[in-house]
Amino acid sequence: MGIRIAEGERLDDLQNGYKIIQDVKDFCFGIDAVLLAWFARVKPGARILDMGSGNGIVPLLLRARYGQVHITGLEIQEKSAAIARRSVAYNHLEDDIDIVTGDIKEAAAIFGKASFSVVTVNPPYMTGGHGLVNERSSKTIARHEVLCSLEDVISQASLLLQERGKFYMVHRPFRLAQIMSLMVKYNLEPKRMQLVHPYIDKEPNMVLIEGLRGGNSRITVEKPLIVYRKPGVYSDDIMQIYGRKE
Amino acid sequence: MGIRIAEGERLDDLQNGYKIIQDVKDFCFGIDAVLLAWFARVKPGARILDMGSGNGIVPLLLRARYGQVHITGLEIQEKSAAIARRSVAYNHLEDDIDIVTGDIKEAAAIFGKASFSVVTVNPPYMTGGHGLVNERSSKTIARHEVLCSLEDVISQASLLLQERGKFYMVHRPFRLAQIMSLMVKYNLEPKRMQLVHPYIDKEPNMVLIEGLRGGNSRITVEKPLIVYRKPGVYSDDIMQIYGRKE
Repeated sequence: MGIRIAEGERLDDLQNGYKIIQDVKDFCFGIDAVLLAWFARVKPGARILDMGSGNGIVPLLLRARYGQVHITGLEIQEKSAAIARRSVAYNHLEDDIDIVTGDIKEAAAIFGKASFSVVTVNPPYMTGGHGLVNERSSKTIARHEVLCSLEDVISQASLLLQERGKFYMVHRPFRLAQIMSLMVKYNLEPKRMQLVHPYIDKEPNMVLIEGLRGGNSRITVEKPLIVYRKPGVYSDDIMQIYGRKE
Repeated sequence: MGIRIAEGERLDDLQNGYKIIQDVKDFCFGIDAVLLAWFARVKPGARILDMGSGNGIVPLLLRARYGQVHITGLEIQEKSAAIARRSVAYNHLEDDIDIVTGDIKEAAAIFGKASFSVVTVNPPYMTGGHGLVNERSSKTIARHEVLCSLEDVISQASLLLQERGKFYMVHRPFRLAQIMSLMVKYNLEPKRMQLVHPYIDKEPNMVLIEGLRGGNSRITVEKPLIVYRKPGVYSDDIMQIYGRKE
């Protein structure tokens, strides 16, 4: 079919029927993206937007898991978007996944208000990034709020979602107060949260959160998700999520 | 010293040098109050206000733990306040603990703005309460937001605290988004949170939260606090908190 894996790229098997092309020098997907796709609850026929889609990992995982859904990946870095499009083509998913090059801050203008039933996002976790050596490097843009802030992400998601649409985000716990405060401000009521701990007796290092456009004020905090049973050994929950055991 | 234990009352040993009088038919203290007093971090010389103090359990626990601090307990129900005053007298703590009968909604007017360095509160957890059989019963008032809302509690605490003063609250996780949103709104920035789970593999049923008047937006989410190791057997953490093992 003519999709070529270039020098410095790698073709990874997602173990779900699909493969993904990754640039080994660039931002490769991590457990955050896997947990985000697992945490999201998507209904058949959903129209999903994945904001800041990178190499397209979340669209591929959602498509594998949910079948009949349409997913748009929005990515500001053309190089990442181009790799994502090649992965989509490699998996013959051109009818189901669109990769659009564009800015999260302009997402509602690009796609129109209330045009999605689900928004997923694995945004930059760190504030600022100014003064970093490579302020405009692709890794810095993916990790630091150089090109968009948390408020940009949440306010645009709110505009893009239909009433009763769902918002799913993975982020870092140290931003939790700001996350919840902004979600309430923009009418994406936090409805479900799960903290992810590396070990059972350690502080969490990720948070998964679900918002409901127009929801009432009541959140379910789920049991902690533990990543490792012991060093180098995933917990049973993580093994299930990675599909290695059911 | 003439403190009489009345019919229907009980004198409980707090195992910290103090005893507390409780009305057995009324709202007796629970693990929430114990965890709140444990979670609070108080410096010598602190001026503490405990809002909605009930029978005075939190002032007694804080005084036992921190020594040289002055604590004011504010309680709207005169019957509870009267019992609390008798417990204070029983323990010879009249110089260190004041129990004031009054309304949380008027707390800043009663005590003056910026008059405390620490505020603790174990507020009613449930919204409303209207339509309950005993809308004005003492238990309903302690459990439901009949006489004051979460916004009353947080807005008054913000007025009462000095800049850089600390706010400590125990509440239910289902209110978390509203708690954080209101704390941010009233400039009591959430700085530390701990979820309390009955068992390691269960959803949390309490949340402990620390706010800093005028703090910046960054929160530490601590490791989960687990109450029971197995049915009827407290975890080591809880045994330490109850002072039964160090």
